[in-house]
Amino acid sequence: MAASTATATVPGLTVQELDELYKFAVQLGKDAGDKLMEDAKARWGGGSGSNNHSQQEMREKENAVDIVTKTDEEVEAFIKGRIFDRYPDHEFIGEETYSAGSSRQYLVSSSTTTLPTWIVDPLDGTVNYTHNFPMFCVSIGIVVCSVPIIGVIYAPFTDQLFTSCKGKGAWLNETQSLPLVKGAPLPESAPKGCIFSCEWGKDRRDIKDGNMHRKVESFVNMAAEVGGREGKGGMVHGVRSLGSATLDLAYTAMGAFDIWWEGGCWEWIHPPMTPTAYTLWKQASKDVAAGIAILLEAGGLVTTANPPENWETAEVQDVGLGSRLYLAIRPAGDTDKVTKRQAQERVVREVWKRVRELDYARPGA
Amino acid sequence: MAASTATATVPGLTVQELDELYKFAVQLGKDAGDKLMEDAKARWGGGSGSNNHSQQEMREKENAVDIVTKTDEEVEAFIKGRIFDRYPDHEFIGEETYSAGSSRQYLVSSSTTTLPTWIVDPLDGTVNYTHNFPMFCVSIGIVVCSVPIIGVIYAPFTDQLFTSCKGKGAWLNETQSLPLVKGAPLPESAPKGCIFSCEWGKDRRDIKDGNMHRKVESFVNMAAEVGGREGKGGMVHGVRSLGSATLDLAYTAMGAFDIWWEGGCWEWIHPPMTPTAYTLWKQASKDVAAGIAILLEAGGLVTTANPPENWETAEVQDVGLGSRLYLAIRPAGDTDKVTKRQAQERVVREVWKRVRELDYARPGA
Repeated sequence: MAASTATATVPGLTVQELDELYKFAVQLGKDAGDKLMEDAKARWGGGSGSNNHSQQEMREKENAVDIVTKTDEEVEAFIKGRIFDRYPDHEFIGEETYSAGSSRQYLVSSSTTTLPTWIVDPLDGTVNYTHNFPMFCVSIGIVVCSVPIIGVIYAPFTDQLFTSCKGKGAWLNETQSLPLVKGAPLPESAPKGCIFSCEWGKDRRDIKDGNMHRKVESFVNMAAEVGGREGKGGMVHGVRSLGSATLDLAYTAMGAFDIWWEGGCWEWIHPPMTPTAYTLWKQASKDVAAGIAILLEAGGLVTTANPPENWETAEVQDVGLGSRLYLAIRPAGDTDKVTKRQAQERVVREVWKRVRELDYARPGA
Repeated sequence: MAASTATATVPGLTVQELDELYKFAVQLGKDAGDKLMEDAKARWGGGSGSNNHSQQEMREKENAVDIVTKTDEEVEAFIKGRIFDRYPDHEFIGEETYSAGSSRQYLVSSSTTTLPTWIVDPLDGTVNYTHNFPMFCVSIGIVVCSVPIIGVIYAPFTDQLFTSCKGKGAWLNETQSLPLVKGAPLPESAPKGCIFSCEWGKDRRDIKDGNMHRKVESFVNMAAEVGGREGKGGMVHGVRSLGSATLDLAYTAMGAFDIWWEGGCWEWIHPPMTPTAYTLWKQASKDVAAGIAILLEAGGLVTTANPPENWETAEVQDVGLGSRLYLAIRPAGDTDKVTKRQAQERVVREVWKRVRELDYARPGA
């Protein structure tokens, strides 16, 4: 790896190297997404509307978990192979990196190495993928010294490509800069007027004051009329659930979602994990590296989902990868009264006021 | 209008007339969707990422309601004009047809006329549209003798076109027949394994046992672990909320959503309506004509969302347009044990078991 030059914006990379890395990552995202789509289409019938023999056979042989596991592994191997061909000295974190029984410490170190680390989720939105609902994607993030510098998210079924590179902006389909509407202020009465994005997740235990019930209580607080819920009613403009944390982040970067609240989905699972636990854990530990890279480059804010005790006055800290409890606010514009950061922090507090702390812990934390 | 011939599948239309009508409706949907997209893009910034003067001016002049109202009216006028140019004797029902102060009886009569009635929603997913979230669309349905015969839904931001014509199948982008996977059986343990689509809607009143709370109770029953919620836990594979009833139906026809439950959103609003009430009412009374046409043609089932008292044994009746309380089940395949209809009805009962009756009434009902 060449030493940094005076014009480099990322430690350890020249401007030209960063350009090349970005271009390479974008093409890789497109190619990997195309592979996801090919695999999906192989399960579909043809245009005739008639039954398809090989399809029926496939249905009998494969269940939903098999489909995802096979595609996950194949597309990850494809991505990993391409990266190591071109950048043999880079680090790589993917699904397989967290293999069953291994330590699941968070792997992106804040060490002084300036070698880029690739953080790859070959398939986010796995439930959507098995059901052929378009909200699935490939997610490729590149981190240097713990800072996300490149993000590539490609949703092939809708042909939507979200990309960013530190200092070069965030983009939809490489031509439309993000957010779509520049400088749009956050609503003064937020969360009223906001689209609130959230996910039901996998923890469906019907335990009194358990995570599912805390989540639902939080959703209802955000949705209820102003004045309702003992003053917690937020009357958001809409509640959306797509089933893909990566696309939630992408649409927040785009400005379409004002607020994304993801109460984390880590569960403490002791090794060695059963296959079921491992599957759950893999689904729960999806990467957000690319999404956060794109959101930050677009001007969004990411902080913790769990409200601090002193939520009215606590510092709104930017959180990095691995926190696993995310609250994202869309890019915003300054107004005559407040800066964009002040407006975003105000919305953060309005969300903290209404949501419950969830009880997930990062393995090893 | 020419008399029906021996080969006609729709009363009052020859095969050729039906073909022409279908082709005309599809092109109209595409053109109308393109207009929606043009209007949306006019609000975006350019590719430079810099602030845009005219855009800022527009932001100051127009609020979200204005944007939607203007686009709604323009696109409806465009569609209506094109239809009356070509088919001056057809009936037309759109947003404006239900103008403030007029009777809001359900307008599609079951009279003996065989003149096609166009039921048009120029913009479904209005909240998404104002926020630039891609899940908005144009919806064009054609009904003859109260039977939906043609459906066209076009979501221009994702370039997804859903179409159907009675006897000719249902299609994605005109080349891929729906459902995507033919003959896929519904899960035997449904709703476990199903994607459940539902919307939070506009009624957010925090009233004890009010509609919002009944909805949320229903959602939680569907989501909770099997065995939870006093036996009502359904452990669906995923809960999705897109903010567009029309696209919910389209994705159910596609097979991506297994279950769509829409507890209706009519509210009894006495004329003359205030502008606010009228806006709420318009949003609440969105057409589902195109979506139901496509879903039925693909092999789906539509019945009532409100569970009958004897939900275990009550006949599962197909409901027509105007019922406003919909439960849709995706197309399914026969298995060795049950027919597709039996499987769909089983899922209907499993949903009825878990959802609450909502308290909406159709105006005039």
